[in-house]
Amino acid sequence: MSDNEFSAMPLVDQPEAPVERRRRAGGRGADRTARRSTGHSKYLNLVNTMTKSTVLSEDALEAIHDASLTILEEIGMDVILPEARQRMKAAGADVTEGTDRVRFDRGLIMEMIASVPPAFTLHARNPIRNVQIGGNNLVFAQIASAPFVADREGGRRAGNQEDFRKLVKLAQSYDIIHTTGGYPVEPIDIHASVRHLDCLSDMVKLTDKAFHCYSLGQQRNIDALEIARIGRGISAEQMEQEPSLFTIINTSSPLRLDGPMLQGIIEMSSRNQVVVVTPFTLAGAMAPVTIAGAVVQQNAEALAGIAFTQMVRKGAPVLYGGFTSNVDMKTGAPAFGTPEYMKAVIAGGQLARKYNIPYRTSNTNASNTLDAQAAYESGFSLWALTQGGGNFIMHSAGWSEGGLTASFEKFILDVDMLQMVAEFLTPLDVSQDALGLDAVRDVGPGGHYFGTAHTLARYETAFYSPILSDWRNFETWTEAGRPTTYDHANRVFKDKLNEYEKPPLDLAIEVELDDFVARRKREGGVATDF
Amino acid sequence: MSDNEFSAMPLVDQPEAPVERRRRAGGRGADRTARRSTGHSKYLNLVNTMTKSTVLSEDALEAIHDASLTILEEIGMDVILPEARQRMKAAGADVTEGTDRVRFDRGLIMEMIASVPPAFTLHARNPIRNVQIGGNNLVFAQIASAPFVADREGGRRAGNQEDFRKLVKLAQSYDIIHTTGGYPVEPIDIHASVRHLDCLSDMVKLTDKAFHCYSLGQQRNIDALEIARIGRGISAEQMEQEPSLFTIINTSSPLRLDGPMLQGIIEMSSRNQVVVVTPFTLAGAMAPVTIAGAVVQQNAEALAGIAFTQMVRKGAPVLYGGFTSNVDMKTGAPAFGTPEYMKAVIAGGQLARKYNIPYRTSNTNASNTLDAQAAYESGFSLWALTQGGGNFIMHSAGWSEGGLTASFEKFILDVDMLQMVAEFLTPLDVSQDALGLDAVRDVGPGGHYFGTAHTLARYETAFYSPILSDWRNFETWTEAGRPTTYDHANRVFKDKLNEYEKPPLDLAIEVELDDFVARRKREGGVATDF
Repeated sequence: MSDNEFSAMPLVDQPEAPVERRRRAGGRGADRTARRSTGHSKYLNLVNTMTKSTVLSEDALEAIHDASLTILEEIGMDVILPEARQRMKAAGADVTEGTDRVRFDRGLIMEMIASVPPAFTLHARNPIRNVQIGGNNLVFAQIASAPFVADREGGRRAGNQEDFRKLVKLAQSYDIIHTTGGYPVEPIDIHASVRHLDCLSDMVKLTDKAFHCYSLGQQRNIDALEIARIGRGISAEQMEQEPSLFTIINTSSPLRLDGPMLQGIIEMSSRNQVVVVTPFTLAGAMAPVTIAGAVVQQNAEALAGIAFTQMVRKGAPVLYGGFTSNVDMKTGAPAFGTPEYMKAVIAGGQLARKYNIPYRTSNTNASNTLDAQAAYESGFSLWALTQGGGNFIMHSAGWSEGGLTASFEKFILDVDMLQMVAEFLTPLDVSQDALGLDAVRDVGPGGHYFGTAHTLARYETAFYSPILSDWRNFETWTEAGRPTTYDHANRVFKDKLNEYEKPPLDLAIEVELDDFVARRKREGGVATDF
Repeated sequence: MSDNEFSAMPLVDQPEAPVERRRRAGGRGADRTARRSTGHSKYLNLVNTMTKSTVLSEDALEAIHDASLTILEEIGMDVILPEARQRMKAAGADVTEGTDRVRFDRGLIMEMIASVPPAFTLHARNPIRNVQIGGNNLVFAQIASAPFVADREGGRRAGNQEDFRKLVKLAQSYDIIHTTGGYPVEPIDIHASVRHLDCLSDMVKLTDKAFHCYSLGQQRNIDALEIARIGRGISAEQMEQEPSLFTIINTSSPLRLDGPMLQGIIEMSSRNQVVVVTPFTLAGAMAPVTIAGAVVQQNAEALAGIAFTQMVRKGAPVLYGGFTSNVDMKTGAPAFGTPEYMKAVIAGGQLARKYNIPYRTSNTNASNTLDAQAAYESGFSLWALTQGGGNFIMHSAGWSEGGLTASFEKFILDVDMLQMVAEFLTPLDVSQDALGLDAVRDVGPGGHYFGTAHTLARYETAFYSPILSDWRNFETWTEAGRPTTYDHANRVFKDKLNEYEKPPLDLAIEVELDDFVARRKREGGVATDF
């Protein structure tokens, strides 16, 4: 049984608690995020009630849907795992014996995806960190899978365990980051055979948020499931009722599902855990050069993967992932946060809503540093994914250089931008008191509002206080050495790491976790051929 | 008679002409804007067919409308010009004799604004530069009224004629800048008594786009009207049929209309020229500290000014201007591009559409330099004004430091971002050919699309080529010296100025213009008391 309970929690309905404002003396640009005295903020459960934007007419939406089903019927997918092909055949797909090719009748696809839950809860070991996926809910996951890491002092370097841990600690430090999203950077100083054990153990200990496991062979999935279960301190039976782990399943575009990905679906969906099927369809490279064509292919691949989750287990929680962008046609370099990316994100949202499946997309950019480009490409991404109705946003914070680098400074920039999106989505107060007629009467023509009772009662919490924006006048800013956003972000991430506190964890759970990891390491972890 | 003809020209309906791509050899980040061989691009007439976003329910919209009319009835406005009070009294307003106070019955306001044209054409001396204002049209005007100017080499300095001219030339150089928006920087090396003569003469000679005149006393308006008429080579009668000049009328918030502004409305509206009534209502300073309250006051002030234009001349073209943002409550510094600004922009759009009046808003930010903040604040502004249905966007390019500085580099950054917005708004091609089924059939599972016929036929024009985005890989970018967006923008603005070409102007017009300016200078221009 999947957990189909859908408890949207609009910000406006949340009980208000006294606000504790954290400032450092004279600290321009310090972290001034309003927090509740309970220690968690209003950013925990975000709801996006904006009317969603569209780039496809109803007819165009049907045309894309129809073309993608034609692809699955006529061309099919290469499915690189005998067990998966057997399961597909059993479900009614057309498997060409002696090859990897599987073709899917459109009726079969539609029948399969009909059982996908439109919304569900992803459980964390701390219940206040549970995230609602689907409907109008908006969940931000940290950057995942960068091979490199960068900060200003250390430059760009290969990932290691220390930087991995720092990034995970930062994810824990901001409530706007609802879950981690994988390894924020790949810690290559840990041997691949045991890396998942150390990394996932860190996810349990350093955060109390839900987390992701890589589908890189059956055993890693099984280890991850056990670590997530131990972390939550529940039985395997309870975990099967309560999705508590997610995995990203990338198709190998065009039109191929690789073995480890298919194994991941089998292990995760059969236990009612969360699968995010995401084709990576760069228009002009792994997909047609037109955005419409790339979205057609994205849709075909996503539907095939989603249908397979339901062949494994009807009702298993799964997301429709869209990751269509364009390439720079002069160099083949991927481009992100472009107008084409925006249209693809919004088109993907229309398709996911058509199928009533939660929608995963990403906060992207291709800049090599923290400059205006990093901000405008991420800003355009956030625009599109918000207006397009993204539910689960991968790479929300820290993504730099087209995903090759996890940037500490970019992480802070993104947190600030995400918080601004959250504030934008907070319903506007239009109470009689907020309309302020009495204040206007008090001040009258020609006055000002700085000292009025209406202002004094509200000024401390009236507006969002950004982490990074420097609003000092030019002279004061010059006296301070003309710091840029990059300078502020560099200072803030280090301050935030200094302030980090490990979330409480039951000693019994910690012991069980350490025992499990130690045993699995003694067993050699996972066999690797490198 | 106002020109109510509304000829929306969707991009998709424009005839396609061969595209000439302008690149410099090896020039990463050079200006690669696609242009037609005719010399003007697809950015001339922008149409925003996105469904507009809302932040107010129908009830909340009514509540704001109602509260603002209550203000005009109960409190009223201070109207600092006897002639204006007389005209208002004649129209039925309640003028308190011996004071500046005027109160407006809500029925009077609604009756007056009913005659505002929902859309009209602002005529330029080159007809391809005419802009359609209202409906779904989107017009970008350059930065206006900055006291300072900045580029990286020259630093921040007071405005002068040379920089004024450079900025006007840049406005002419990009079709995405549809009109200038005032003096992009105040050239204080020209005496105030004749500054308008030199500056507006430059507007005619250095651009062929429509322009703005400041309402700083009756005589300046009259001179500007004559310069606009001469520039277009038309009679006063024809100009009265064809709005060819616009003026921004700022209320003096809270609730005051100053003399020169009222004179500006009288001179401009009586001749059927374009008035943009814009309260500048910073929540917490000149308006209530709540965004809803500030929007209530904005609406009251805007409606009073708009109603007055119709008292002067029924059917005169006028825009509803919104400029509500918040201040940093710790310092009183204005903040822009904030979540609060976004909500105010979208609320303003809802009000303008309720009244069926074209909507003016702005591309804002408060950064002191060209950093990530400059980009994310402008990006959030563009998001809000696009989704909010802005028709006429002031300060579209070059606005820095909360409007205190016209930045050459920011101008280029904004042009790039505006072009991306325009590309985003271009309808997605969903033709059978774009859906690309045949290309998918050709490539099949596991291939790639780099060399396919479908790709080769389209790759040169498939995607927007940004001016500034640096998509080189880290190694190549490092070899190039790790340039940031700021570096690229610095190079591009200088290149663009070198490429500038003066638009053709009839010799007879130039002579008439020079004679007029010379005569008015001999007459002493406008009397000044400073």
